[in-house]
Amino acid sequence: MATSRFFMPPSASTWNKSKVSLQRVNITSNAIQKTVRFSVINCSLKINLHAQPALNGEIRVPSVIKEMENEEITSLSVAGRLVKGGLVFQQDVSVRSFEIDSEYKMSTKAIMNYLQEASLNYAKKLGLTIDTCFGITPGMRKMDLVWVFRGMHIEVDRYPCWGEVVQILHWTCASGRTGVRFDWTINDINTGETQVRASCLAVMMNKNTRKTCKLPEEVKDEIKAYLRVDVEPIVEVFRYSCPQIEAMDHIKTGLTPGWNDLDVNYHVNNAKYLDWILESTPDSIRDRHELWKINFEHRKECLKEDVIQSLSRVIPNNEKNRGIEVDHDLRLESGHQILRARTVWRTIPTPAGASPA
Amino acid sequence: MATSRFFMPPSASTWNKSKVSLQRVNITSNAIQKTVRFSVINCSLKINLHAQPALNGEIRVPSVIKEMENEEITSLSVAGRLVKGGLVFQQDVSVRSFEIDSEYKMSTKAIMNYLQEASLNYAKKLGLTIDTCFGITPGMRKMDLVWVFRGMHIEVDRYPCWGEVVQILHWTCASGRTGVRFDWTINDINTGETQVRASCLAVMMNKNTRKTCKLPEEVKDEIKAYLRVDVEPIVEVFRYSCPQIEAMDHIKTGLTPGWNDLDVNYHVNNAKYLDWILESTPDSIRDRHELWKINFEHRKECLKEDVIQSLSRVIPNNEKNRGIEVDHDLRLESGHQILRARTVWRTIPTPAGASPA
Repeated sequence: MATSRFFMPPSASTWNKSKVSLQRVNITSNAIQKTVRFSVINCSLKINLHAQPALNGEIRVPSVIKEMENEEITSLSVAGRLVKGGLVFQQDVSVRSFEIDSEYKMSTKAIMNYLQEASLNYAKKLGLTIDTCFGITPGMRKMDLVWVFRGMHIEVDRYPCWGEVVQILHWTCASGRTGVRFDWTINDINTGETQVRASCLAVMMNKNTRKTCKLPEEVKDEIKAYLRVDVEPIVEVFRYSCPQIEAMDHIKTGLTPGWNDLDVNYHVNNAKYLDWILESTPDSIRDRHELWKINFEHRKECLKEDVIQSLSRVIPNNEKNRGIEVDHDLRLESGHQILRARTVWRTIPTPAGASPA
Repeated sequence: MATSRFFMPPSASTWNKSKVSLQRVNITSNAIQKTVRFSVINCSLKINLHAQPALNGEIRVPSVIKEMENEEITSLSVAGRLVKGGLVFQQDVSVRSFEIDSEYKMSTKAIMNYLQEASLNYAKKLGLTIDTCFGITPGMRKMDLVWVFRGMHIEVDRYPCWGEVVQILHWTCASGRTGVRFDWTINDINTGETQVRASCLAVMMNKNTRKTCKLPEEVKDEIKAYLRVDVEPIVEVFRYSCPQIEAMDHIKTGLTPGWNDLDVNYHVNNAKYLDWILESTPDSIRDRHELWKINFEHRKECLKEDVIQSLSRVIPNNEKNRGIEVDHDLRLESGHQILRARTVWRTIPTPAGASPA
């Protein structure tokens, strides 16, 4: 077990030069990422630890993706490429000046946009869709079906900076009898460090009746060669109770989609919901913290003419390691819920330039 | 004069198989683009013409930029590179799914974002700025100066599509005694065809007093090696009279910047103004036409807490070739003007897949 295979993100600088001993608990792996769980025992042995801290006294050590894929990486893949025999899609992305926040870090909205981009490019690369049918297979088109995101979970260990080139890896898995799960990681292209993990459940919806349905056999046949099985979600969904709408005390009303917020189907772009959530998030949280985890549950589509209310409430808790949890609700003025969400915020970590060594 | 050096964009398909004869009028050139002007004479000679039609009975033929730079292009340049001894910056860009409109074409807002991105990367590449000072030279920092865009002119011959890789070329020129002009072209990476031309006047502003000033000698010394001289603007500014605010009959009020619309200085991102302009542009124009030309004149900065009114008016005119002209005014509720603009719209051209041969 070479220490050079472990990486510590700058955000975890408190681990720097820690004196710890590790006891391996178990190993789980899929073709993308190997997760080795350790328990930590206080002792005097000093090791050069480069790892990502978890919250439960364990340390999660992602394997070095770049090392795994090394033979396949020859140059930047701007348009994306298939790896692992088509089971994984890889796309390299350079963070733009217009995709960063006031801390010069990639915005969570930009991350969400790139996750969607990777999905669409994967389908295109596999030859499952043509340019003018956004992610729609021939079988789906015949039955007037479209993909609908149900729940989305994102966990950001370290936000990429302006100009940084990152590697997105993306794959799909069968999920129960009715759905498909999309998984992504965003990785440091030089070290292989996983910076972002995301998982999303998608189902089929008839675009005329707007009703969801089981994955039809015909569509399953089209995509089954690229659906992985028995692969755990790359990010663990954090459970939470139903938000109490009545208790929500931060409210912003009158939010409307702009023309640039609509996708090719004239629906509001998925990442736009994050904008609206931020509008009712208290300044004290948004200004002095960064988004660590997001859990979206979509309830209803949103169209150009809709007027939206954004409601938020900070969840009282005393566990420092859990971060600050905020419940969110987006609804139409009629009261219909569009989306409910929970975000988890942490204090802004030390700058990316700080040496972990 | 080989015909293979001329390109006809799909939008100019009416030129296809036209029977015309050309008489060369004059040639103007700079290091980036050679413009050959012809007058057209009706005759029976059939030639295989690949050219961009202009409005005044002349044909403007851009030289093949790729051919000019051929020896320097070896692979995609995602982060950008210096060419022409540092006088020109080149960056390759892949159009993303979240940067396109309902016609699957790159949005004008995305184009504006990439122009700014190229400028900032150029300054960074030249070593004039560091990562955490957006386009600010050491001399500017000492004097608390920042760049401010005054006027921006964009002309789009053909919008790139989703997945298309385009090449941005960017250079700067001295402009009078006080300012600097930024010029850009966006080109088809395979054919060299110029798809977008843009020009922008920038001046210095003291960030404390918010007053503009002459380009200080110290800053001039820092950048003069990269300021081109005697180079014509890549796009001609179209003149128009001052818009009549009283006559503006399309009005949208209550527009507010979102958190994701702010740049690192907490000012509203330049491209956001285009969103607001579109909000008061009549549906009949926005839905059945595409933006051809834009002329922005910035008057006042816009901050997070501002509430904006967008006013528009279609200019009556009977000259079909001029397109549909619309005057725009963005103002605070107090009446202070933020920006005035004119946009020119044309009917959506035939799909990009249509063969020009």
